[in-house]
Amino acid sequence: MSRMFKRLSSTVTIKATPSKAHHHVPLPSSSFPTGYVLTGIHAGVKKNHSVLDLGLIISTSQQPTSAAACFTRNAFKAAPVLVSDQILQQTGGRARAIVVNSGCANAVTGRQGLDDAWTMVKETDALLRPLPAKNETLVMSTGVIGQTLPITKIVAGIRSQATPEGTLGSTFEAWERAAKAFMTTDTFPKLRSRVFTIGGVEYRMAGMDKGAGMIHPNMGPAGTTFGASKGQLHATLLGCILTDAAVSPRSLQSALTYAVDRSFNSISVDGDMSTNDTIVVLANGAAAPSGAKEIDEETDRDGYEVFKKELTEFAADLAKLVVRDGEGATKFVTVNVKGAPTYKDAHSIASRISTSALVKTALYGEDANWGRILAATGSVPLRPATPTSTPPTIDPTKVSVTFVPSDGTAPLPVLVNGEPEIVDEVRAKEILSLEDFGVDVDLGMSGDGEATYWTCDFSYEYVRINGDYRS
Amino acid sequence: MSRMFKRLSSTVTIKATPSKAHHHVPLPSSSFPTGYVLTGIHAGVKKNHSVLDLGLIISTSQQPTSAAACFTRNAFKAAPVLVSDQILQQTGGRARAIVVNSGCANAVTGRQGLDDAWTMVKETDALLRPLPAKNETLVMSTGVIGQTLPITKIVAGIRSQATPEGTLGSTFEAWERAAKAFMTTDTFPKLRSRVFTIGGVEYRMAGMDKGAGMIHPNMGPAGTTFGASKGQLHATLLGCILTDAAVSPRSLQSALTYAVDRSFNSISVDGDMSTNDTIVVLANGAAAPSGAKEIDEETDRDGYEVFKKELTEFAADLAKLVVRDGEGATKFVTVNVKGAPTYKDAHSIASRISTSALVKTALYGEDANWGRILAATGSVPLRPATPTSTPPTIDPTKVSVTFVPSDGTAPLPVLVNGEPEIVDEVRAKEILSLEDFGVDVDLGMSGDGEATYWTCDFSYEYVRINGDYRS
Repeated sequence: MSRMFKRLSSTVTIKATPSKAHHHVPLPSSSFPTGYVLTGIHAGVKKNHSVLDLGLIISTSQQPTSAAACFTRNAFKAAPVLVSDQILQQTGGRARAIVVNSGCANAVTGRQGLDDAWTMVKETDALLRPLPAKNETLVMSTGVIGQTLPITKIVAGIRSQATPEGTLGSTFEAWERAAKAFMTTDTFPKLRSRVFTIGGVEYRMAGMDKGAGMIHPNMGPAGTTFGASKGQLHATLLGCILTDAAVSPRSLQSALTYAVDRSFNSISVDGDMSTNDTIVVLANGAAAPSGAKEIDEETDRDGYEVFKKELTEFAADLAKLVVRDGEGATKFVTVNVKGAPTYKDAHSIASRISTSALVKTALYGEDANWGRILAATGSVPLRPATPTSTPPTIDPTKVSVTFVPSDGTAPLPVLVNGEPEIVDEVRAKEILSLEDFGVDVDLGMSGDGEATYWTCDFSYEYVRINGDYRS
Repeated sequence: MSRMFKRLSSTVTIKATPSKAHHHVPLPSSSFPTGYVLTGIHAGVKKNHSVLDLGLIISTSQQPTSAAACFTRNAFKAAPVLVSDQILQQTGGRARAIVVNSGCANAVTGRQGLDDAWTMVKETDALLRPLPAKNETLVMSTGVIGQTLPITKIVAGIRSQATPEGTLGSTFEAWERAAKAFMTTDTFPKLRSRVFTIGGVEYRMAGMDKGAGMIHPNMGPAGTTFGASKGQLHATLLGCILTDAAVSPRSLQSALTYAVDRSFNSISVDGDMSTNDTIVVLANGAAAPSGAKEIDEETDRDGYEVFKKELTEFAADLAKLVVRDGEGATKFVTVNVKGAPTYKDAHSIASRISTSALVKTALYGEDANWGRILAATGSVPLRPATPTSTPPTIDPTKVSVTFVPSDGTAPLPVLVNGEPEIVDEVRAKEILSLEDFGVDVDLGMSGDGEATYWTCDFSYEYVRINGDYRS
């Protein structure tokens, strides 16, 4: 009985979550894609007048603008998800604008929610030139919920952009304002840009995203089942990527689907999937040579592959910002699994390691507890090669685990071919006390399945934020 | 930028985890099955001499003793799991003894670990009368690891039971000592018994288990692939159930497999599956009428169904004790999902709700945040009826969520057919401030799939225990 009461109360000082503000940096205007105007304004969804809550992104290109999106696979899709999905299907992947609000997720708001989302689309469509023949605005919402949108204020905010008071622009400051309009519990606006070349022509892409909690996206392409309901939820992953390349709608979608799997669908803060997760990409062709065809996977395979690679890397950059800003996060951990039979197997195992409460609390405690990593790895059933075949099994004597520091110093193997190394605990602590480090798991199986996941630790601060979110 | 630094440090006083000691109660000796002797001793695996670390359970019945087990499905199975599995296959489901040690899990200990587990089997076999022709002892280990067993001390401990100093007995005190020998981070020994009747004959079953962290078992019957490796892990679910009914080996296994799915495979503390999870059941026939046949699902369907029901209920009782003693747990929550197409769908959804970090932190915060429950529900893909058919989808307008107090007062519907109720927050707080309550989710789909899961909340205390487990 001596053990009883061992696990009782004590006072704990929560470690200061390090400031993440330095991850927001100015970007040169020349790195932003041409043919877009943006803004972020205070429309009145949020009470605080100094906080931006409505963002607009509009393509002004003379070329057709392609659009693609990946939406949450959650059964309880929010109204803006359902509406944007439907628009992409109606237009066959053409859209010229994005409207986003923060402060209210318009999720689980029934018929009224759908009406409000459509209103946002139609009001934003009215800002487009030439005026669209069909709906050409995609809509996104995020925030603390259980309520319908203050749609009158939002409509007024959108209409204000057609007046001389309008602030749509293409400077860094305009992009920054749009990025700020996405924010909810985020501690910094998440904005990045990059320049790339396809066939000797220079293009640009820039994008923004938001998210800190309820982050474990699983998004797929448009064409999901419709249905809506009402209720209080919160938080979400939202993002958009804008490029001035010209890409056919179907190839934009397939490149995005590939990129999202390897970026936004490969991050976890808390293992919880939201009802609003949405990633949109627009390609307006504004930088394409006159008369050039749209990049397409069938007619321009090389160009498509370059574009897909750029999009995937860029999406990963944006996704990682969400993990860095994860609720209560003090660590940024890259989990790499290789030597698996397939990419999907590697991805499932990396996901399991990245969501394990025992792994994540050990990361917080800066404890090189690879046993927990192994237990998480072994808990994932591998997929059979065909529906009727026996699934492959992990051979424990071939598995290796290594901690990889981010500072360029030597990696630390802790398990090699199933044999535990005699670990230098001082060195282990040194690596785990870094803000950034990696965990590599090599299953040593035949097959080249490899996947990377990004996760953060699990801290007192996470419990504090989410233990009394509504109070 | 006003939001920046919002999520910074503060001092938090960890709520006192309520004492769980009252869940350990004396049981009448008449409720224990006949034909078993047990003990728990200090063999020296653990340093503290007042702590028991070796348990022995031996059937003294003149009838054949049937044995069945479910083992972890983790790819990294510990040595005792591999050895017990092999014995059950060799004997065709006959075994008369169980030996268990705590303090060292003998997991990931390579060839030496397997040798040590076999030594424990053979030494315990030597205590059986008549002496067995084949191995008839099942072995289990649990504890903080990375090391091989102190096998000399364990052998001496087992052999001491053949001497006049031996403490094997059948009193409550003997059962209690055996239960204590299972304990690691548990705060109380977990021991229960029950009396039941089949065909007018009275039988008894009693059992014990242990576990507090790394609890999210997924166990299946014997016959898994072999393989072993080395490494530091910890914690586990172990349990055994002893009955004096006579049950054929195959029916004991099928009843146990059914029972484990609805008990031990339906609990979660932290969503992490261990490498050592093992549940064993022995049926020694000591209370069966002379000359009676063993209960079997083909030759005595009625008797089998009664036995299966009793075993399932009893296994659930034992499983629930583990959740009550979950690391850092302050709540005991019963999650019931119904109106699903199949039991498996209901079970997957109940499991997802029970492991959601956002749900569990809200439970800790006594926050009736049903939105998080809904998001978790919607994140689970339902199974297609056949491999080639389209999976069914949840209709959000048919889903209802209810909080159910344990004190017999009225349940509180918070979502009815997809429509949020206007929730009396005072009443909600009243229910969630109870130690025990339930969450009912009705999907409203055609099909009678229903499953129950037991979980606990996610507290600062959990982070404290697991953030510096090894230090």
